Amino acid sequence: MEKKIITIGRQFGAGGREVGKRLAEKLNIPYYDKEIIDSAAVLSGLSKEYIAQNDETVTNSFLYSLVMGTRTLTGQKTVEEIKMDAQREALMEIAAKGSAVIIGRVADYTLREENPFRIFISADEKIRVERVCKRDGLSESEALKKVHKMDKLRSAYYNEYAYAAWGKADNYDLCINLSKISIDTAIDMIMLNM
Amino acid sequence: MEKKIITIGRQFGAGGREVGKRLAEKLNIPYYDKEIIDSAAVLSGLSKEYIAQNDETVTNSFLYSLVMGTRTLTGQKTVEEIKMDAQREALMEIAAKGSAVIIGRVADYTLREENPFRIFISADEKIRVERVCKRDGLSESEALKKVHKMDKLRSAYYNEYAYAAWGKADNYDLCINLSKISIDTAIDMIMLNM
Repeated sequence: MEKKIITIGRQFGAGGREVGKRLAEKLNIPYYDKEIIDSAAVLSGLSKEYIAQNDETVTNSFLYSLVMGTRTLTGQKTVEEIKMDAQREALMEIAAKGSAVIIGRVADYTLREENPFRIFISADEKIRVERVCKRDGLSESEALKKVHKMDKLRSAYYNEYAYAAWGKADNYDLCINLSKISIDTAIDMIMLNM
Repeated sequence: MEKKIITIGRQFGAGGREVGKRLAEKLNIPYYDKEIIDSAAVLSGLSKEYIAQNDETVTNSFLYSLVMGTRTLTGQKTVEEIKMDAQREALMEIAAKGSAVIIGRVADYTLREENPFRIFISADEKIRVERVCKRDGLSESEALKKVHKMDKLRSAYYNEYAYAAWGKADNYDLCINLSKISIDTAIDMIMLNM
């Protein structure tokens, strides 16, 4: 099989992770998600906890460092820059090793030279709230708040680092809304182009 | 077969019309495009030419009438409102008749009560410019200008009448970028959910 890099962006609670896992199984290629954070942490020497905490959010300190131009003043990288460099390096290493399914982490943009197949997974808010309730043991109103918050963070993170609009159809090769389309059918659709 | 309303939004020059035609053939159901304009024209008594000229653009006079609240002042509909009502009525009649593939015309929003399967077709700019050069006999720079202009008009028209963002993945059930995915594969993907 030709080398395949498949990236999956997703709305919070839409089922993107499940699509990624099942796709990787079907193609018999590695699946990366939290593993990227681990590798990045090892590479950068930053603690796993710190990166996990700041994962996929644009922190105030990063925005502050941008506004204040901290790096040019001191010539030193901010912790966020070290994290991003480490994640980028980890993504490059993963892609160098061979085929992979990679969830989130702006991998579609970071690995653009690899010509990845870029998937975006969405679902109606109602469905996402239901999944988050069940998965994270939250009330409906808590789940709704979390869905809104996480989408906002993911969008800000992507738009900051990919210089593109998160969830805009033409940024991706295939966008599947898992409201009318089942995960089984979504996998079959993706497999048609593999 | 259960009644199916399939709507296709598309970037200019992406190939959405071809996808729609071939899908309608494969499903053996009617395909609507300019035909909607014709029906709308008959219904409203407006000339076919007038509607064709103003099709999928938000005209200055419409914006003017919104700003000035012309309708409330005079109690009369503007020509644009008559056109939109007629198109809406035509879409309703088409949907009432049975299954259909409908291109553009904010049909996904207008026919939302019918629970349509909503497709969006995009393609990289390079590919779209090539198609428009060939199809419309334009130079590369003319085609590029037309692609930008038409996308802008479609986006403004959709955002105005659908109260939603044109080309945003989660507004649709399936968004296919015809850069890496062939039209044949796109049709096969769609057919998996029919």
